[in-house]
Amino acid sequence: MSALERLVSVEPADIERRSFEIIGRELGDRVLDPENEPVIKRCIHTAADFDYADNLAFSPHATAIGAAALGRGASIVTDTSMAASGVNKRVLGRFGGEVLNFIADPQVAAEARERGLTRSAVSMEFAARLSRPFVFAIGNAPTALVSLYELIEAGRMVRPHLIVGVPVGFVNVVESKELIMELDVPYIVARGRKGGSNVAAAICNALLYIASGGERQ
Amino acid sequence: MSALERLVSVEPADIERRSFEIIGRELGDRVLDPENEPVIKRCIHTAADFDYADNLAFSPHATAIGAAALGRGASIVTDTSMAASGVNKRVLGRFGGEVLNFIADPQVAAEARERGLTRSAVSMEFAARLSRPFVFAIGNAPTALVSLYELIEAGRMVRPHLIVGVPVGFVNVVESKELIMELDVPYIVARGRKGGSNVAAAICNALLYIASGGERQ
Repeated sequence: MSALERLVSVEPADIERRSFEIIGRELGDRVLDPENEPVIKRCIHTAADFDYADNLAFSPHATAIGAAALGRGASIVTDTSMAASGVNKRVLGRFGGEVLNFIADPQVAAEARERGLTRSAVSMEFAARLSRPFVFAIGNAPTALVSLYELIEAGRMVRPHLIVGVPVGFVNVVESKELIMELDVPYIVARGRKGGSNVAAAICNALLYIASGGERQ
Repeated sequence: MSALERLVSVEPADIERRSFEIIGRELGDRVLDPENEPVIKRCIHTAADFDYADNLAFSPHATAIGAAALGRGASIVTDTSMAASGVNKRVLGRFGGEVLNFIADPQVAAEARERGLTRSAVSMEFAARLSRPFVFAIGNAPTALVSLYELIEAGRMVRPHLIVGVPVGFVNVVESKELIMELDVPYIVARGRKGGSNVAAAICNALLYIASGGERQ
């Protein structure tokens, strides 16, 4: 049988439902925390990686807190344009929220150069200046998480609704995530090296679908 | 020692170099195909996932062919805005190329609805109408790969320079990638379920850095 013949005939709208069925089946007897299950499954779905069944850490009721904030119109701040582009803006906008991302702001680049910091770190200070609580979705830069930690500890940032801390990589990534878990702020963190802008967006989308009453898993 | 104290002090510009050193070290005695090594390592880097040392398949000289095409100013067509946003447009633009993505075109949405297809599949037909050879970077939709296969087999698309086929997921993903490997078109494919928009962008960026003379790995 050729590869062409082995393709399953499936309606576009059914692809996601079937994918979640397969994920559920392959998780087998494994019991996920029911409160956080939609977030965990959506991360597995977005990376085809079952490591997310083990590496996600949630502060108490983080999923419910994040979904409630987005449902009340909270906006999301991301560290990359890639994470921003992965968030479902249609659903977010329905609640009144928007995605903010300052990484391409020439002012951010200028300040980062002057102070020898990453643009990601400086972009968190720009978010702090807005003096509003946000959901932060950090999928790339450990320096963004360190910047958030310092801003919050110094009382220079309104306490966020939630920090989604899922940078990916090999340098300071593990440590920056542990740092965020020390704050008294709700968090969803992918412990270890894994994560990414795609995972950050997937977690936001899982929260948005919960806020929408779960018409998507 | 607190998480804060365990953070390594590192200049922003050095983070990537150090990350690649760690990847090299952890690969150990493992010998990668030198021609494709920068692509493989950048995929490992972008997902913090060493599976990419095993799952990437390259047609003969695919890396060199892709880098040469981008160096001559070829444009990249992606299936998602997320992959588009991950490509280094500064380097791509220096060679004269741009990123094209038709997924948000209302005309694509209308045609997809009418014909019961995914927007991703229809967006490939929009690329075909431009009658130019492209580098395709498909990180999400198996239906985009199937559409490319059908367009090329039917002679309705100018032969692409390269197809980067790295959709992620559980339904038709494996099969769609095998299909692309049956075409007489240069390819870089992540066999199996893994991949993603981040991986598609990372492969394009690896090719761009090779075309730039490798000042980045």
